[in-house]
Amino acid sequence: MGGDFAPEAAVKGAVMALDELGEQSRIVLFGDEGRIRELLAAENCTSDKIDIVHTSQVIEMGDHPVTAFQQKSDSSITVGFGYLAKGLIDGFASAGSTGAMMVGSMYAVKPIEGVIRPTITTVVPNAKGAPVVLLDVGLNVDCKPEVLCQYGIIGSLFAESVCGIENPRVALLNIGEEETKGNAQAKATYDLLKIEGETGHLNFVGNVEGSHIFSGKVADVVVCDGFVGNTILKMVEGLYQINMRLGVENKFWLSMNYENVGGTPVLGINAPVTIGHGKSTPLAIKNMVLSTERTISSRFTERLREAIK
Amino acid sequence: MGGDFAPEAAVKGAVMALDELGEQSRIVLFGDEGRIRELLAAENCTSDKIDIVHTSQVIEMGDHPVTAFQQKSDSSITVGFGYLAKGLIDGFASAGSTGAMMVGSMYAVKPIEGVIRPTITTVVPNAKGAPVVLLDVGLNVDCKPEVLCQYGIIGSLFAESVCGIENPRVALLNIGEEETKGNAQAKATYDLLKIEGETGHLNFVGNVEGSHIFSGKVADVVVCDGFVGNTILKMVEGLYQINMRLGVENKFWLSMNYENVGGTPVLGINAPVTIGHGKSTPLAIKNMVLSTERTISSRFTERLREAIK
Repeated sequence: MGGDFAPEAAVKGAVMALDELGEQSRIVLFGDEGRIRELLAAENCTSDKIDIVHTSQVIEMGDHPVTAFQQKSDSSITVGFGYLAKGLIDGFASAGSTGAMMVGSMYAVKPIEGVIRPTITTVVPNAKGAPVVLLDVGLNVDCKPEVLCQYGIIGSLFAESVCGIENPRVALLNIGEEETKGNAQAKATYDLLKIEGETGHLNFVGNVEGSHIFSGKVADVVVCDGFVGNTILKMVEGLYQINMRLGVENKFWLSMNYENVGGTPVLGINAPVTIGHGKSTPLAIKNMVLSTERTISSRFTERLREAIK
Repeated sequence: MGGDFAPEAAVKGAVMALDELGEQSRIVLFGDEGRIRELLAAENCTSDKIDIVHTSQVIEMGDHPVTAFQQKSDSSITVGFGYLAKGLIDGFASAGSTGAMMVGSMYAVKPIEGVIRPTITTVVPNAKGAPVVLLDVGLNVDCKPEVLCQYGIIGSLFAESVCGIENPRVALLNIGEEETKGNAQAKATYDLLKIEGETGHLNFVGNVEGSHIFSGKVADVVVCDGFVGNTILKMVEGLYQINMRLGVENKFWLSMNYENVGGTPVLGINAPVTIGHGKSTPLAIKNMVLSTERTISSRFTERLREAIK
């Protein structure tokens, strides 16, 4: 149970997710068992699809992620990653400390062999209502071209298996459409992605400019350095806030609400992990649980392992 | 006379600008004199504040900028830059070939001594209706930290003299608020801007994240590499288009219309130059003429020369 509104929001969100959960799926809640049982009772939830693993510690926002992950060995995040690493659960999601979630991803679950650097992605809606997979959104800045090229592979597979996009169009974010445009990083990445496209590893459609990230006309997967991706993501969040204050009410902007986004998946590691916004509401938690379930049921991790081999 | 709708849009825009022009100011039109006179007559314009310099050639979009600038010596852009370099006019604006405009800026007008690399900027409105100076927006990618730091100085002076913002807050675009955040470029730039702030050369307020570029809460001047700035600018243009299609009608988004923006000033060179959107309408031309006039009357170039010395 993590996040600013834990454990209430987490329990409520989990209960909300139950209705849409696959038949074979179960939800395991890590946290204060007594408190969780109280909250489940308050929700009139008697489902037998919820398990509880009692944990007694909490990693606070101020804690150093690495130290806290190791020393608070009975925190929900540390225990949860233990279960995940042992295969006792198939995926893990939390709105708790982002730093600790990354520590768990890198050191408990570990990168898939052959993945140079794992990535965090966001699935944002485009103007046509279809999903756009944007990666990296802030984990890796100063990406080497081969890292960015691999993000093309990872993003393509995620778009196909988890988002259900057939033959996803993979594009490199750049400052022009032409092959020769861009900074040194983009130019070198273009060449690598072109080869991957020519050898049939992905459907590389070339460069995409900022103007078309959300138009849906060019790409289903947008590859970029974490510095740029983070800026794009936060800029959209900021514009969303401005729009809500201005009373803008249309499907496109409403769908930009982080509560609908389903959290930020960590990709390139040996199990599905999703990081939620600290301020996650029950709705955000519900969507995060369901998107994690989709990642599990799509066998994304196994397919990525196969693809990277 | 340049741009997709030249010379009609350019002449109409110039006529529209006359009403708001300073008493001492005049407009010089470079282009086909006969055609310009026809268009002025059609607008019932008999103002004695318009001069015409006849030119017979046109630099086309497909032309190579350097070659065309040299060989089409009687094009409006080449002749205009000649006038500017000789001091016969005080500023120059065109919606013609961006490449040729940059060639003229760099080789006819030339960078101010001490400016490492000139920059192009955009003034975008924030949610409070105040201007935000964003630079660089695409001229320089892979900026060295000292170049970015100088953009802080240039942007600050532009915000103060041309936009009328007192003691403008200068921020570095970054992926976190903390001093230690960012890629190698941002970290090194932070240190340099901090020194400029401490020595009173500008009002450095630290990092600004993507979420606050348009909130107006953090910065009046946002410094970033041209790769990121170009992406931000084009992304806003793309979102503006989506919003217009969705019927969003509020002051914030309407003010994002490029027609109101007044073109893209080239900063760090020895005279005011403004590049307009190829598709500039009369309104866009009018605002570009007036913003160029503001840059002239604010004595921005002279003040920058002084500041950089």
